[in-house]
Amino acid sequence: MKSYNIAIFGCGIVGSGVARILLEMNKELSQRARHTIQLKRIVELRPKTASGKNNIPLDLFCGGGKDLTAEEAGKYIDEIIHSDDIDLIVETIGGSNDFIYDTAVRICDAGKHLVTANKALLALRGKGIFEAARKNKVSIGFEAAVCAAIPVIKTIKESFTGDSIISVSGILNGTSNYILSMMQNEKLEFKEALKLAQEGGYAEADPTLDINGYDASHKLILLAKLAFGIDITLEQLSPIGVENIKREDIDFAEEINCKIKLVCYAKRENGKIYAAVKPMMVKNDNFLSSVNGATNAVRLINKYSGRHILVGSGAGSLETASSIVADIVFIARYAEKMKYHIEQTNYDFIDAKHFVFPYLIVFKTVDIPGITGLVTTSIGNQHINIDTVSHNRHIKEYAVFSIATTPCTLKQIDDAIAEIKKNRPDVLLGEPKVMPILY
Amino acid sequence: MKSYNIAIFGCGIVGSGVARILLEMNKELSQRARHTIQLKRIVELRPKTASGKNNIPLDLFCGGGKDLTAEEAGKYIDEIIHSDDIDLIVETIGGSNDFIYDTAVRICDAGKHLVTANKALLALRGKGIFEAARKNKVSIGFEAAVCAAIPVIKTIKESFTGDSIISVSGILNGTSNYILSMMQNEKLEFKEALKLAQEGGYAEADPTLDINGYDASHKLILLAKLAFGIDITLEQLSPIGVENIKREDIDFAEEINCKIKLVCYAKRENGKIYAAVKPMMVKNDNFLSSVNGATNAVRLINKYSGRHILVGSGAGSLETASSIVADIVFIARYAEKMKYHIEQTNYDFIDAKHFVFPYLIVFKTVDIPGITGLVTTSIGNQHINIDTVSHNRHIKEYAVFSIATTPCTLKQIDDAIAEIKKNRPDVLLGEPKVMPILY
Repeated sequence: MKSYNIAIFGCGIVGSGVARILLEMNKELSQRARHTIQLKRIVELRPKTASGKNNIPLDLFCGGGKDLTAEEAGKYIDEIIHSDDIDLIVETIGGSNDFIYDTAVRICDAGKHLVTANKALLALRGKGIFEAARKNKVSIGFEAAVCAAIPVIKTIKESFTGDSIISVSGILNGTSNYILSMMQNEKLEFKEALKLAQEGGYAEADPTLDINGYDASHKLILLAKLAFGIDITLEQLSPIGVENIKREDIDFAEEINCKIKLVCYAKRENGKIYAAVKPMMVKNDNFLSSVNGATNAVRLINKYSGRHILVGSGAGSLETASSIVADIVFIARYAEKMKYHIEQTNYDFIDAKHFVFPYLIVFKTVDIPGITGLVTTSIGNQHINIDTVSHNRHIKEYAVFSIATTPCTLKQIDDAIAEIKKNRPDVLLGEPKVMPILY
Repeated sequence: MKSYNIAIFGCGIVGSGVARILLEMNKELSQRARHTIQLKRIVELRPKTASGKNNIPLDLFCGGGKDLTAEEAGKYIDEIIHSDDIDLIVETIGGSNDFIYDTAVRICDAGKHLVTANKALLALRGKGIFEAARKNKVSIGFEAAVCAAIPVIKTIKESFTGDSIISVSGILNGTSNYILSMMQNEKLEFKEALKLAQEGGYAEADPTLDINGYDASHKLILLAKLAFGIDITLEQLSPIGVENIKREDIDFAEEINCKIKLVCYAKRENGKIYAAVKPMMVKNDNFLSSVNGATNAVRLINKYSGRHILVGSGAGSLETASSIVADIVFIARYAEKMKYHIEQTNYDFIDAKHFVFPYLIVFKTVDIPGITGLVTTSIGNQHINIDTVSHNRHIKEYAVFSIATTPCTLKQIDDAIAEIKKNRPDVLLGEPKVMPILY
């Protein structure tokens, strides 16, 4: 068998998992790839940590196992990119800065295949990298970039090619989902749940990208590109995370048989793409409501084959690594045939304001008589039908209640809220929280 | 683009769906396959039914649209198999008789790729067909043979290649699951639920293969072959279907927080493969318990990436057809690279008797004092720990109760039952029903 030589750039949590699997499963992987898979070189600033944790021989590391300066690492990266002896490079450095972007483009320009789990890089700056791959006829494997080993990328690219995807939705961020599950099941406040998530290893010390919805958005951007051929920007999505969810929101959700989930949602309708990342009220009948903890789930609805759900662990060292290794096998098998055709479309992106959904609106108001009449009248004036009005919580100086609507647009709701503010500027305490209800 | 020519043998419910998608999505399919996909010829005994239902031009049918005798159809099949103008043949005739087997082998021998949804054929007689494909360097696409468009075959063959599969389980028969769901949710007896399933199109007029577990077994045999490289026979599996499930079994399941599901289960452990198809008590915490109606679900547990679940519709004309079309696209893209390597292993097949599981045993006995002591003593004599003893139902001339055990083997339970019979041949009314409890 021909040998197929791999280098790894960045041997941290994920990269060292890749090295471990490439070494542990070498025989099976080589049979599956129909090439002798060889892990040739690793570039890592601190080899000893990686080596110790996953039992990786130090002589695989450039520099023989000693710590590298950034400059030394850069030189080794250059050397490998231009080496004739490497077929495929795994990028597991992470981040989306210029250095990483340039490295990815240079890998492609040098005629080497690239496998990466870097969702931020591909979602925010993928265009130039995919273009470099196309131009140089190399493949980019990025299954691991969306929900680790859940096989959603290959499912869209290879399994649903006999169909037409109508919508993609899902729970794509394990940290947020863990926090929401803890708030729901253990009756915790957001801060307590976040603390538990950090202690349990489900949230990083700086959890910003997870709880503000950006990480989930990166994944949705990649899925929407594959499913619909559209490039959505983070600005267009303007994601809302879970950091402002309160216990009372969870209680209101329970009252209408829902769980609050951070839902990623993209749908094709009449030549337009609707997409959003925000907390939604997911009806208990909808499978996504039962996805708890750090688990991820992706739901696809197809024209011919209907509804599909893929569930699994969306993060973790070996989970992500196994997915990277599968991409290596796939590229080694099929490389010259791969050159993914990403369908280019002219779909318009539709702002979340124009989504037609039923919504739940949570109002915090001064606690005086007449408020319910005022609020429901303004909602009715915008031709929004009200489904249910919750029991009103009277909490010392204020009251909290929620209204579930039948399907309408966010614009109608915004107009209703504007009317309430105009008629009685003294009544609303803070901006009402508006969340779609997902059946 | 080079053209890629397709013929369809058998244009019934599934075949006509394939023809429809090939025609409706022709432009997208050709882009995705990077070949101009052309549906060239269809062989079907009754073209008008197929044509009318899915709007397929009659001139695509051999014979120009007139009904064919079996002999005429056979001649057209010969002609197409030996035609230079056809690249790939879709077999949607069904069945596993000699004619179908020979046709499949002849397609491969003629150097043509084969795509089929025929699970019985591949599960019972696949060896010769896969061998013919290997010898002639053609591909066999059979994603549609296991749970229609649920992408489980490609997930195992292409997505989990960077991992090692430990177990495959699932609900692989929609008819059985629909019946069990109706018994559970609507409090029906088996016969009433079966009737409803037939009226709703979820069961065929002759539902034998669905309710006796054979259809599910065919699918498990194919999954076990791909996941573990082992050829399991139907005799080895000796499946048990759902036809003997009674309302009282469902009630006992509820008492221990379970749903009864027809579970297909295969597991690798210490170089041995354990496999079974039988009704199991699935704990409400296990996701499979919440899979209702005609939905199918497959659960895979991997060494590195943990637990995965794929859910979707496991049957239906267009669902199955879209999966066949995806295989066509895949083969057109990658054909000469495909030649699947199915790993050959030396795993021993272990009879269900030696599974270690917790079990629920349902006893029907004469209704006299002392029975519980007799039964529980014999169970204890086999070193089986008892977890719970159900409330005893006193029904006119007999009593029914159930015992949940902690993990033990079926052999231990058989021995306990034998002891009860030996000590008191007059007590048991019929064979106790023994079902594994799945956590």
